[in-house]
Amino acid sequence: NMLDNDAEDEDTIKILLSTDNHVGYNEKCEVRGNDSLTAFEEVLQHAKRHDVDMILLGGDLFHENKPSRRMVNSVIQLLRKYTTGDKPCQLEFLSDPSINFKQSKFPVVNYEDPNINISYPVFSIHGNHDDPSMGNLCALDVLSSTGLVNYFGKCDSLDKVQVSPLLFRKGDTRLALFGLGCIRDERLHRLFEQKKVQILRCKEDADMWAKHGAKDYIPESFLGDFMDFVLWGHEHECRVDPEFNGSFWVSQPGSSVATSLSEGEAKPKYCALMKIHKKSFSIEKLRLQTVRPFYFEDIILKSTDIKPEAFHERKVMRYCKERVEYLIQLAGEEHSGHRGQPALPLVRLRVDHSGGYETFNAVQFGQQFVGRVANPKDIVLFTKKRQARQRGD
Amino acid sequence: NMLDNDAEDEDTIKILLSTDNHVGYNEKCEVRGNDSLTAFEEVLQHAKRHDVDMILLGGDLFHENKPSRRMVNSVIQLLRKYTTGDKPCQLEFLSDPSINFKQSKFPVVNYEDPNINISYPVFSIHGNHDDPSMGNLCALDVLSSTGLVNYFGKCDSLDKVQVSPLLFRKGDTRLALFGLGCIRDERLHRLFEQKKVQILRCKEDADMWAKHGAKDYIPESFLGDFMDFVLWGHEHECRVDPEFNGSFWVSQPGSSVATSLSEGEAKPKYCALMKIHKKSFSIEKLRLQTVRPFYFEDIILKSTDIKPEAFHERKVMRYCKERVEYLIQLAGEEHSGHRGQPALPLVRLRVDHSGGYETFNAVQFGQQFVGRVANPKDIVLFTKKRQARQRGD
Ligand SMILES: [Mn+2]
Ligand SMILES: [Mn+2]
Ligand SMILES: [Mn+2]
Ligand SMILES: [Mn+2]
Repeated sequence: NMLDNDAEDEDTIKILLSTDNHVGYNEKCEVRGNDSLTAFEEVLQHAKRHDVDMILLGGDLFHENKPSRRMVNSVIQLLRKYTTGDKPCQLEFLSDPSINFKQSKFPVVNYEDPNINISYPVFSIHGNHDDPSMGNLCALDVLSSTGLVNYFGKCDSLDKVQVSPLLFRKGDTRLALFGLGCIRDERLHRLFEQKKVQILRCKEDADMWAKHGAKDYIPESFLGDFMDFVLWGHEHECRVDPEFNGSFWVSQPGSSVATSLSEGEAKPKYCALMKIHKKSFSIEKLRLQTVRPFYFEDIILKSTDIKPEAFHERKVMRYCKERVEYLIQLAGEEHSGHRGQPALPLVRLRVDHSGGYETFNAVQFGQQFVGRVANPKDIVLFTKKRQARQRGD
Repeated sequence: NMLDNDAEDEDTIKILLSTDNHVGYNEKCEVRGNDSLTAFEEVLQHAKRHDVDMILLGGDLFHENKPSRRMVNSVIQLLRKYTTGDKPCQLEFLSDPSINFKQSKFPVVNYEDPNINISYPVFSIHGNHDDPSMGNLCALDVLSSTGLVNYFGKCDSLDKVQVSPLLFRKGDTRLALFGLGCIRDERLHRLFEQKKVQILRCKEDADMWAKHGAKDYIPESFLGDFMDFVLWGHEHECRVDPEFNGSFWVSQPGSSVATSLSEGEAKPKYCALMKIHKKSFSIEKLRLQTVRPFYFEDIILKSTDIKPEAFHERKVMRYCKERVEYLIQLAGEEHSGHRGQPALPLVRLRVDHSGGYETFNAVQFGQQFVGRVANPKDIVLFTKKRQARQRGD
């Protein structure tokens, strides 16, 4: 039931979907230190440009459980800059905010607080990186106290989970938004099996989950057979195009900053503009143009012309150098043109040296690319056989 | 030129003065952990009750340079609860906010930001406890980013200081407010001597400094002979009644929470309601009723009936015990009646044992008062001769 063509705006709920922004990742790196903030800012810019009714974040907004003052401050500044404003939010909020935001001292959806003007409200669950388990308060609680984020899906009990949806209406379209911040996978699984997860079903036109966690752990059937759509956070590869799993659609926007040099993180990164009209929805992918270019290449030495003969190391190094040079050139050609996109690319060669090949010192190898590649110290990774695809988080 | 009787409100600028709130002091103590927050909340309540035009804080709002998440969150919550609202602030802001708040991404006085409703704007300089020297950002910068605090007096240069006043008008009364957050005393002194402190004189009806630092270091003449009034932060003893020093008035509200068991901290604690009408002002002391009772007593053993003979230790202990029992009883009788005031008092006996008296184990002595005194472990402090009065900070 994809939405065919744009319906009237007054009945269409527009949501900007993004997840795993990992603000603060590698913040001390002189080259890459601002990448996470740049991408998060672009997400907010997309939201504003498309005049959405809501920005929905799927967890791991912060990379660190205790983000640095600089990062907290920057996120507050970005939220204040992009989400406050005169334009009223068109969503009617129909559920009881004192239940949806019961952990908050200000249990009100921020755009209905008379003392702060919010045009583009942010709704977020927490992820495993910014979860509240250590000491009960998490970074999102602080943002919630400022009034800049509607933090939902916080569970205050270890023994049972009750998910009470946020209910919205815009014209003729009604949305129920269920959220459950990250809970340790094993525990959540156990709670599901013991039937201690209570989902307060409230069938609306569109029923939507925001979920953060590994896909394996929670059989999709747990989520309720009435669910229409799940925003999935945690896995960093962008699979934003909705995938139907037999009972509902899943969209996984993936991270907005690469937190590992894995294959999945090298895929183009997107956030998404979701439009919901009654029972139909559509997803428009929005390419993030300020994300640092990242090229990942698999090299299997056995499959090259190089034989593991005497003095072959030099040939392997030359080969790798050529590949890096090529990828640097490609990065130049493929630059988005957005002035916010950094020029220096991330480059990762995963070199399978099985078959009797010697390895070389990767750090030393990288020195020739200082100033041309963002990660000179770990361009080359030697493996013996192809690794399983790394999981994001 | 004290203000005799209340002038018309429309020409009278009302300011709540407070300083050295030291939020987070001893926050991990089960008994005393919330004292700093309780007192700060009371300060904000006084401001609201007296419908002030401004809350002016003199530095050391936070005890720690990196306050805990719980404390930052609590302060944000308190500021949002007490300072936001519908009632417009009556102060006209006449100076250039992009100069007064040039370090901010939102260089605007918060009550003129169209996206946040502020009724009781907070203005604050930083102290030495919450100063920005480590890493340039301080806790007040974060509060400033939220829009809940107008952080002024931040100096961005090590070589010179330029103080540009905040200019206000309410009806016929004009106020110039100069601020300089804490700079290391020696450095500031040197800068003054080298004439690298530039005070942009702007004579108004009332010229007022907010200053944080030791009194000895900066000769009062440095502050400019046109100054009328100085709010002095840093020293924790309450000397809120204005003292005239020959050229201007000084009010030192002192800390709102005792951060040491010194004599000065045991004095009754106040914030103040300042009223400025043209060239006149008045100060009304407002007793803080939620401050934990603190009794400080000097005991000079030589002046008692106890002689330093064999087995005199037992007599000394009995004497001390009686004094503590008396002070506990006094604390009960003198309780403010405010339900926010904790019952368990702080008690400090400073025992001068010169003259051949033995000391005893103070920690062991205190065990009998667990649950009756807030600081059982350090009730008794032995000294050989009367110490110099401890300085607050
Ligand atoms: Mn995660
Ligand atoms: Mn993640
Ligand atoms: Mn101080
Ligand atoms: Mn202090």
